[in-house]
Amino acid sequence: MSSPVHHLILASTSPRRRDLLMQAGLTFRVIPATVDENSVRPGSPEKHVRQLARAKAEEVSEHYPESWVIGADTIVTIDGEVLGKPKTKAEAGRMLETLSGKTHRVLTGYCICCRKKKRTFCDVVETEVLFKELTKKEINWYIGTGEPFDKAGGYAVQGLGIFMVKRIQGSYTNVVGLPVCEVIDYLYKEGVIER
Amino acid sequence: MSSPVHHLILASTSPRRRDLLMQAGLTFRVIPATVDENSVRPGSPEKHVRQLARAKAEEVSEHYPESWVIGADTIVTIDGEVLGKPKTKAEAGRMLETLSGKTHRVLTGYCICCRKKKRTFCDVVETEVLFKELTKKEINWYIGTGEPFDKAGGYAVQGLGIFMVKRIQGSYTNVVGLPVCEVIDYLYKEGVIER
Repeated sequence: MSSPVHHLILASTSPRRRDLLMQAGLTFRVIPATVDENSVRPGSPEKHVRQLARAKAEEVSEHYPESWVIGADTIVTIDGEVLGKPKTKAEAGRMLETLSGKTHRVLTGYCICCRKKKRTFCDVVETEVLFKELTKKEINWYIGTGEPFDKAGGYAVQGLGIFMVKRIQGSYTNVVGLPVCEVIDYLYKEGVIER
Repeated sequence: MSSPVHHLILASTSPRRRDLLMQAGLTFRVIPATVDENSVRPGSPEKHVRQLARAKAEEVSEHYPESWVIGADTIVTIDGEVLGKPKTKAEAGRMLETLSGKTHRVLTGYCICCRKKKRTFCDVVETEVLFKELTKKEINWYIGTGEPFDKAGGYAVQGLGIFMVKRIQGSYTNVVGLPVCEVIDYLYKEGVIER
Protein backbone atom coordinates (compact mmCIF):
# COMPACT_ATOMS: atom_id res chain seq x y z
CA MET A 1 0.00 0.00 0.00
CA SER A 2 1.64 3.26 -1.02
CA SER A 3 0.59 6.86 -0.57
CA PRO A 4 2.62 9.98 -1.40
CA VAL A 5 4.29 11.42 1.70
CA HIS A 6 2.21 14.15 3.41
CA HIS A 7 -0.76 13.25 1.26
CA LEU A 8 -2.57 11.63 4.15
CA ILE A 9 -2.99 13.24 7.57
CA LEU A 10 -4.24 11.79 10.84
CA ALA A 11 -5.79 14.67 12.81
CA SER A 12 -5.45 12.95 16.17
CA THR A 13 -2.99 12.79 19.05
CA SER A 14 -4.00 9.21 19.87
CA PRO A 15 -0.97 6.92 19.70
CA ARG A 16 -3.42 4.03 19.34
CA ARG A 17 -4.90 5.41 16.09
CA ARG A 18 -1.39 6.11 14.80
CA ASP A 19 -0.33 2.53 15.58
CA LEU A 20 -3.37 1.12 13.78
CA LEU A 21 -2.63 3.04 10.57
CA MET A 22 1.03 2.05 10.81
CA GLN A 23 0.07 -1.59 11.32
CA ALA A 24 -2.02 -1.31 8.16
CA GLY A 25 1.08 -0.12 6.27
CA LEU A 26 -0.03 3.45 5.55
CA THR A 27 2.28 6.42 5.14
CA PHE A 28 0.85 9.52 6.83
CA ARG A 29 1.55 12.56 8.96
CA VAL A 30 0.08 13.26 12.38
CA ILE A 31 -1.29 16.80 12.75
CA PRO A 32 -3.59 16.98 15.79
CA ALA A 33 -6.68 19.17 15.67
CA THR A 34 -7.22 21.64 18.49
CA VAL A 35 -11.01 21.32 18.53
CA ASP A 36 -12.54 21.86 21.96
CA GLU A 37 -14.32 18.60 22.76
CA ASN A 38 -17.02 20.58 24.54
CA SER A 39 -17.69 22.76 21.49
CA VAL A 40 -20.10 20.38 19.79
CA ARG A 41 -23.74 20.55 20.75
CA PRO A 42 -24.98 17.90 23.13
CA GLY A 43 -26.87 15.10 21.41
CA SER A 44 -26.91 11.35 21.09
CA PRO A 45 -23.54 9.57 21.42
CA GLU A 46 -23.69 8.79 17.68
CA LYS A 47 -24.18 12.47 16.79
CA HIS A 48 -21.51 13.53 19.25
CA VAL A 49 -18.69 11.34 17.88
CA ARG A 50 -19.67 12.12 14.28
CA GLN A 51 -19.68 15.90 14.85
CA LEU A 52 -16.42 15.82 16.75
CA ALA A 53 -14.71 13.65 14.12
CA ARG A 54 -15.89 16.05 11.42
CA ALA A 55 -14.78 19.13 13.34
CA LYS A 56 -11.31 17.64 13.82
CA ALA A 57 -10.90 16.62 10.17
CA GLU A 58 -12.22 19.93 8.83
CA GLU A 59 -10.04 22.05 11.10
CA VAL A 60 -6.82 20.42 9.92
CA SER A 61 -8.12 20.27 6.35
CA GLU A 62 -8.35 24.08 6.25
CA HIS A 63 -4.59 24.29 6.63
CA TYR A 64 -3.84 21.38 4.28
CA PRO A 65 -6.49 21.66 1.56
CA GLU A 66 -4.72 19.27 -0.81
CA SER A 67 -4.34 16.49 1.73
CA TRP A 68 -6.77 13.80 2.77
CA VAL A 69 -7.43 14.25 6.48
CA ILE A 70 -8.78 11.67 8.93
CA GLY A 71 -10.52 12.81 12.13
CA ALA A 72 -11.99 10.46 14.73
CA ASP A 73 -13.60 10.36 18.14
CA THR A 74 -14.39 7.35 20.34
CA ILE A 75 -16.75 6.96 23.28
CA VAL A 76 -17.84 4.12 25.52
CA THR A 77 -21.47 3.84 26.60
CA ILE A 78 -23.34 1.45 28.86
CA ASP A 79 -27.01 1.53 29.91
CA GLY A 80 -27.41 4.98 28.36
CA GLU A 81 -24.45 6.43 30.27
CA VAL A 82 -21.32 7.73 28.53
CA LEU A 83 -18.06 6.77 30.27
CA GLY A 84 -15.31 9.33 29.73
CA LYS A 85 -11.63 9.15 30.66
CA PRO A 86 -11.26 8.56 34.42
CA LYS A 87 -9.15 11.11 36.29
CA THR A 88 -8.92 9.44 39.69
CA LYS A 89 -8.48 5.89 40.97
CA ALA A 90 -11.98 6.01 42.46
CA GLU A 91 -13.45 7.07 39.14
CA ALA A 92 -11.56 4.31 37.29
CA GLY A 93 -12.76 1.80 39.87
CA ARG A 94 -16.38 2.83 39.41
CA MET A 95 -16.10 2.54 35.62
CA LEU A 96 -14.52 -0.91 35.72
CA GLU A 97 -17.14 -2.11 38.22
CA THR A 98 -19.83 -0.84 35.87
CA LEU A 99 -18.29 -2.70 32.91
CA SER A 100 -17.62 -5.96 34.83
CA GLY A 101 -19.55 -8.96 33.50
CA LYS A 102 -21.59 -6.83 31.10
CA THR A 103 -21.73 -5.76 27.46
CA HIS A 104 -20.99 -2.14 26.58
CA ARG A 105 -20.90 -0.24 23.30
CA VAL A 106 -17.89 1.47 21.77
CA LEU A 107 -18.75 4.11 19.18
CA THR A 108 -16.14 5.62 16.91
CA GLY A 109 -17.07 8.47 14.61
CA TYR A 110 -14.65 9.07 11.77
CA CYS A 111 -14.48 11.66 9.05
CA ILE A 112 -12.27 11.69 5.98
CA CYS A 113 -12.09 14.84 3.91
CA CYS A 114 -10.18 16.59 1.16
CA ARG A 115 -10.99 20.29 0.66
CA LYS A 116 -9.53 20.61 -2.79
CA LYS A 117 -11.47 17.61 -4.08
CA LYS A 118 -14.61 18.72 -2.21
CA ARG A 119 -14.94 15.30 -0.63
CA THR A 120 -16.19 14.65 2.90
CA PHE A 121 -17.22 11.27 4.25
CA CYS A 122 -18.32 10.70 7.85
CA ASP A 123 -19.65 7.60 9.53
CA VAL A 124 -20.04 5.98 12.93
CA VAL A 125 -19.10 2.36 13.65
CA GLU A 126 -20.39 0.54 16.71
CA THR A 127 -18.85 -2.47 18.44
CA GLU A 128 -20.25 -4.41 21.39
CA VAL A 129 -17.74 -5.54 24.00
CA LEU A 130 -18.38 -8.15 26.71
CA PHE A 131 -16.21 -7.98 29.83
CA LYS A 132 -15.56 -10.95 32.09
CA GLU A 133 -16.64 -10.69 35.74
CA LEU A 134 -13.90 -8.77 37.51
CA THR A 135 -12.92 -9.30 41.13
CA LYS A 136 -12.11 -6.33 43.35
CA LYS A 137 -8.47 -7.50 43.31
CA GLU A 138 -8.35 -7.58 39.53
CA ILE A 139 -9.81 -4.08 39.31
CA ASN A 140 -7.30 -2.74 41.84
CA TRP A 141 -4.43 -4.49 40.08
CA TYR A 142 -5.44 -2.96 36.74
CA ILE A 143 -5.83 0.52 38.22
CA GLY A 144 -2.38 0.08 39.79
CA THR A 145 -0.84 -0.38 36.34
CA GLY A 146 -1.92 3.19 35.51
CA GLU A 147 -3.41 2.13 32.20
CA PRO A 148 -7.04 3.27 32.77
CA PHE A 149 -6.30 6.98 33.11
CA ASP A 150 -6.15 8.32 29.60
CA LYS A 151 -8.60 5.85 28.08
CA ALA A 152 -12.30 6.24 27.30
CA GLY A 153 -14.15 3.80 29.56
CA GLY A 154 -11.04 3.31 31.68
CA TYR A 155 -9.41 0.48 29.72
CA ALA A 156 -7.18 -0.25 26.74
CA VAL A 157 -8.10 -3.32 24.69
CA GLN A 158 -4.70 -3.22 22.96
CA GLY A 159 -2.88 -3.10 26.32
CA LEU A 160 -2.98 -4.97 29.63
CA GLY A 161 -6.75 -4.48 29.53
CA ILE A 162 -6.98 -7.39 27.09
CA PHE A 163 -7.46 -9.83 30.00
CA MET A 164 -10.91 -8.33 30.69
CA VAL A 165 -12.30 -8.57 27.17
CA LYS A 166 -14.12 -11.86 26.67
CA ARG A 167 -15.99 -11.26 23.44
CA ILE A 168 -16.58 -8.53 20.95
CA GLN A 169 -19.18 -8.16 18.23
CA GLY A 170 -18.22 -5.87 15.39
CA SER A 171 -14.96 -4.19 14.42
CA TYR A 172 -12.01 -4.84 16.75
CA THR A 173 -9.99 -1.84 15.57
CA ASN A 174 -13.02 0.33 16.26
CA VAL A 175 -12.58 -0.49 19.97
CA VAL A 176 -8.92 0.55 19.72
CA GLY A 177 -10.04 3.87 18.21
CA LEU A 178 -10.46 3.68 14.42
CA PRO A 179 -12.37 1.23 12.20
CA VAL A 180 -9.41 0.40 9.97
CA CYS A 181 -11.21 -1.80 7.44
CA GLU A 182 -13.76 0.94 6.71
CA VAL A 183 -11.18 3.76 6.62
CA ILE A 184 -8.84 1.92 4.26
CA ASP A 185 -11.71 0.76 2.07
CA TYR A 186 -12.79 4.39 1.57
CA LEU A 187 -9.23 5.63 0.90
CA TYR A 188 -8.70 2.77 -1.57
CA LYS A 189 -11.94 3.47 -3.46
CA GLU A 190 -11.09 7.20 -3.64
CA GLY A 191 -7.68 6.33 -5.07
CA VAL A 192 -5.85 7.88 -2.10
CA ILE A 193 -3.93 4.66 -1.51
CA GLU A 194 -2.88 2.23 -4.18
CA ARG A 195 -2.23 -1.45 -4.21
CA MET B 1 0.41 -9.48 37.40
CA SER B 2 3.37 -11.37 38.73
CA SER B 3 4.46 -14.97 38.28
CA PRO B 4 7.71 -16.59 39.42
CA VAL B 5 10.22 -16.77 36.58
CA HIS B 6 10.14 -20.11 34.72
CA HIS B 7 6.93 -21.01 36.49
CA LEU B 8 4.88 -20.51 33.36
CA ILE B 9 5.81 -21.99 29.97
CA LEU B 10 4.36 -21.31 26.53
CA ALA B 11 4.83 -24.51 24.50
CA SER B 12 4.58 -22.77 21.14
CA THR B 13 6.90 -21.25 18.55
CA SER B 14 4.26 -18.72 17.49
CA PRO B 15 5.56 -15.17 17.94
CA ARG B 16 1.92 -14.05 17.91
CA ARG B 17 1.04 -16.10 21.00
CA ARG B 18 4.19 -14.88 22.71
CA ASP B 19 3.27 -11.25 21.95
CA LEU B 20 -0.26 -11.74 23.34
CA LEU B 21 1.02 -13.07 26.68
CA MET B 22 3.59 -10.28 26.83
CA GLN B 23 0.90 -7.69 26.10
CA ALA B 24 -1.07 -9.15 29.01
CA GLY B 25 1.93 -8.57 31.28
CA LEU B 26 2.82 -12.20 31.98
CA THR B 27 6.30 -13.50 32.77
CA PHE B 28 6.95 -16.82 31.04
CA ARG B 29 9.40 -18.95 29.10
CA VAL B 30 8.94 -20.20 25.55
CA ILE B 31 9.74 -23.91 25.14
CA PRO B 32 8.26 -25.17 21.87
CA ALA B 33 6.83 -28.69 21.71
CA THR B 34 8.03 -30.98 18.93
CA VAL B 35 4.69 -32.73 18.43
CA ASP B 36 4.11 -33.89 14.87
CA GLU B 37 0.95 -32.06 13.75
CA ASN B 38 -0.03 -35.13 11.72
CA SER B 39 0.23 -37.43 14.74
CA VAL B 40 -3.26 -36.76 16.06
CA ARG B 41 -6.09 -38.83 14.68
CA PRO B 42 -8.27 -37.17 12.09
CA GLY B 43 -11.52 -35.85 13.53
CA SER B 44 -13.61 -32.72 13.68
CA PRO B 45 -11.71 -29.40 13.68
CA GLU B 46 -12.68 -28.95 17.37
CA LYS B 47 -11.23 -32.35 18.31
CA HIS B 48 -8.16 -31.73 16.20
CA VAL B 49 -7.13 -28.44 17.84
CA ARG B 50 -7.96 -29.73 21.30
CA GLN B 51 -5.88 -32.91 20.87
CA LEU B 52 -2.97 -31.03 19.38
CA ALA B 53 -3.02 -28.37 22.11
CA ARG B 54 -3.05 -31.11 24.73
CA ALA B 55 -0.23 -33.07 23.07
CA LYS B 56 1.93 -29.93 22.94
CA ALA B 57 1.29 -28.99 26.58
CA GLU B 58 1.81 -32.53 27.87
CA GLU B 59 5.02 -33.07 25.94
CA VAL B 60 6.70 -30.01 27.44
CA SER B 61 5.12 -30.70 30.82
CA GLU B 62 6.95 -34.04 31.02
CA HIS B 63 10.26 -32.20 31.08
CA TYR B 64 9.05 -29.43 33.40
CA PRO B 65 6.67 -31.19 35.82
CA GLU B 66 6.59 -28.30 38.30
CA SER B 67 5.73 -25.63 35.73
CA TRP B 68 2.38 -24.62 34.31
CA VAL B 69 2.51 -25.25 30.56
CA ILE B 70 0.29 -23.72 27.88
CA GLY B 71 -0.18 -25.49 24.54
CA ALA B 72 -2.37 -24.21 21.70
CA ASP B 73 -3.36 -24.87 18.13
CA THR B 74 -5.37 -22.68 15.76
CA ILE B 75 -7.20 -23.51 12.55
CA VAL B 76 -9.36 -21.61 10.09
CA THR B 77 -12.42 -23.29 8.59
CA ILE B 78 -15.00 -22.18 6.05
CA ASP B 79 -17.89 -24.16 4.58
CA GLY B 80 -16.58 -27.34 6.20
CA GLU B 81 -13.12 -26.92 4.70
CA VAL B 82 -9.99 -26.41 6.81
CA LEU B 83 -7.58 -23.80 5.44
CA GLY B 84 -3.96 -24.51 6.37
CA LYS B 85 -0.88 -22.34 5.88
CA PRO B 86 -0.44 -21.53 2.17
CA LYS B 87 2.90 -22.51 0.65
CA THR B 88 2.61 -20.86 -2.77
CA LYS B 89 1.23 -17.59 -4.11
CA ALA B 90 -1.46 -19.51 -5.98
CA GLU B 91 -2.52 -21.30 -2.81
CA ALA B 92 -2.62 -18.01 -0.83
CA GLY B 93 -4.66 -16.45 -3.65
CA ARG B 94 -7.21 -19.27 -3.57
CA MET B 95 -7.56 -19.00 0.22
CA LEU B 96 -8.07 -15.23 0.18
CA GLU B 97 -10.62 -15.56 -2.66
CA THR B 98 -12.46 -18.15 -0.57
CA LEU B 99 -12.51 -15.84 2.47
CA SER B 100 -13.47 -12.66 0.54
CA GLY B 101 -16.85 -11.20 1.53
CA LYS B 102 -17.69 -14.17 3.73
CA THR B 103 -17.66 -15.28 7.37
CA HIS B 104 -15.22 -17.97 8.44
CA ARG B 105 -14.51 -19.64 11.78
CA VAL B 106 -11.26 -19.53 13.72
CA LEU B 107 -10.88 -22.30 16.28
CA THR B 108 -8.16 -22.27 18.90
CA GLY B 109 -7.68 -25.24 21.16
CA TYR B 110 -5.68 -24.55 24.29
CA CYS B 111 -4.49 -26.75 27.10
CA ILE B 112 -2.96 -25.70 30.40
CA CYS B 113 -1.38 -28.34 32.59
CA CYS B 114 0.84 -28.87 35.60
CA ARG B 115 2.06 -32.45 36.10
CA LYS B 116 3.06 -32.08 39.70
CA LYS B 117 -0.32 -30.62 40.67
CA LYS B 118 -2.13 -33.18 38.50
CA ARG B 119 -4.06 -30.40 36.76
CA THR B 120 -5.03 -30.39 33.09
CA PHE B 121 -7.55 -28.05 31.52
CA CYS B 122 -8.34 -28.04 27.81
CA ASP B 123 -10.92 -26.06 25.87
CA VAL B 124 -11.70 -24.79 22.39
CA VAL B 125 -12.76 -21.21 21.67
CA GLU B 126 -14.45 -20.25 18.42
CA THR B 127 -14.56 -16.83 16.77
CA GLU B 128 -16.41 -15.84 13.62
CA VAL B 129 -14.62 -13.45 11.28
CA LEU B 130 -16.22 -11.50 8.42
CA PHE B 131 -13.95 -10.38 5.59
CA LYS B 132 -14.72 -7.43 3.32
CA GLU B 133 -15.08 -8.12 -0.41
CA LEU B 134 -11.53 -8.20 -1.78
CA THR B 135 -10.58 -7.13 -5.28
CA LYS B 136 -8.06 -9.13 -7.30
CA LYS B 137 -5.65 -6.20 -6.87
CA GLU B 138 -6.02 -6.18 -3.10
CA ILE B 139 -5.39 -9.92 -2.93
CA ASN B 140 -2.29 -9.63 -5.11
CA TRP B 141 -1.02 -6.68 -3.09
CA TYR B 142 -1.44 -8.63 0.16
CA ILE B 143 0.27 -11.72 -1.23
CA GLY B 144 3.12 -9.46 -2.40
CA THR B 145 3.74 -8.35 1.19
CA GLY B 146 4.65 -11.97 2.01
CA GLU B 147 2.43 -12.00 5.08
CA PRO B 148 0.07 -14.87 4.12
CA PHE B 149 2.71 -17.60 4.00
CA ASP B 150 3.14 -18.77 7.56
CA LYS B 151 -0.41 -18.03 8.69
CA ALA B 152 -3.39 -20.38 9.04
CA GLY B 153 -5.98 -19.22 6.50
CA GLY B 154 -3.39 -17.08 4.73
CA TYR B 155 -3.75 -13.89 6.77
CA ALA B 156 -2.63 -12.18 9.98
CA VAL B 157 -5.29 -10.16 11.81
CA GLN B 158 -2.60 -8.48 13.93
CA GLY B 159 -0.61 -7.49 10.82
CA LEU B 160 -1.30 -5.85 7.46
CA GLY B 161 -4.21 -8.28 7.10
CA ILE B 162 -6.24 -6.04 9.42
CA PHE B 163 -7.59 -4.12 6.39
CA MET B 164 -9.60 -7.20 5.34
CA VAL B 165 -11.32 -7.87 8.67
CA LYS B 166 -14.65 -6.08 8.83
CA ARG B 167 -16.28 -7.69 11.85
CA ILE B 168 -15.60 -10.41 14.34
CA GLN B 169 -17.90 -12.18 16.74
CA GLY B 170 -16.21 -13.70 19.76
CA SER B 171 -12.71 -13.43 21.16
CA TYR B 172 -10.30 -11.23 19.17
CA THR B 173 -7.14 -12.72 20.68
CA ASN B 174 -8.45 -16.16 19.72
CA VAL B 175 -8.08 -15.09 16.08
CA VAL B 176 -4.50 -14.03 16.77
CA GLY B 177 -3.84 -17.48 18.26
CA LEU B 178 -4.74 -17.66 21.96
CA PRO B 179 -7.92 -16.68 23.87
CA VAL B 180 -6.13 -14.48 26.40
CA CYS B 181 -9.13 -13.68 28.62
CA GLU B 182 -9.89 -17.38 29.14
CA VAL B 183 -6.22 -18.39 29.63
CA ILE B 184 -5.53 -15.65 32.18
CA ASP B 185 -8.80 -16.30 33.98
CA TYR B 186 -7.82 -19.94 34.46
CA LEU B 187 -4.28 -19.12 35.60
CA TYR B 188 -5.63 -16.51 38.02
CA LYS B 189 -8.20 -18.89 39.53
CA GLU B 190 -5.52 -21.59 39.94
CA GLY B 191 -3.30 -19.08 41.73
CA VAL B 192 -0.60 -19.31 39.07
CA ILE B 193 -0.63 -15.56 38.60
CA GLU B 194 -1.36 -13.04 41.26
CA ARG B 195 -2.78 -9.57 41.26
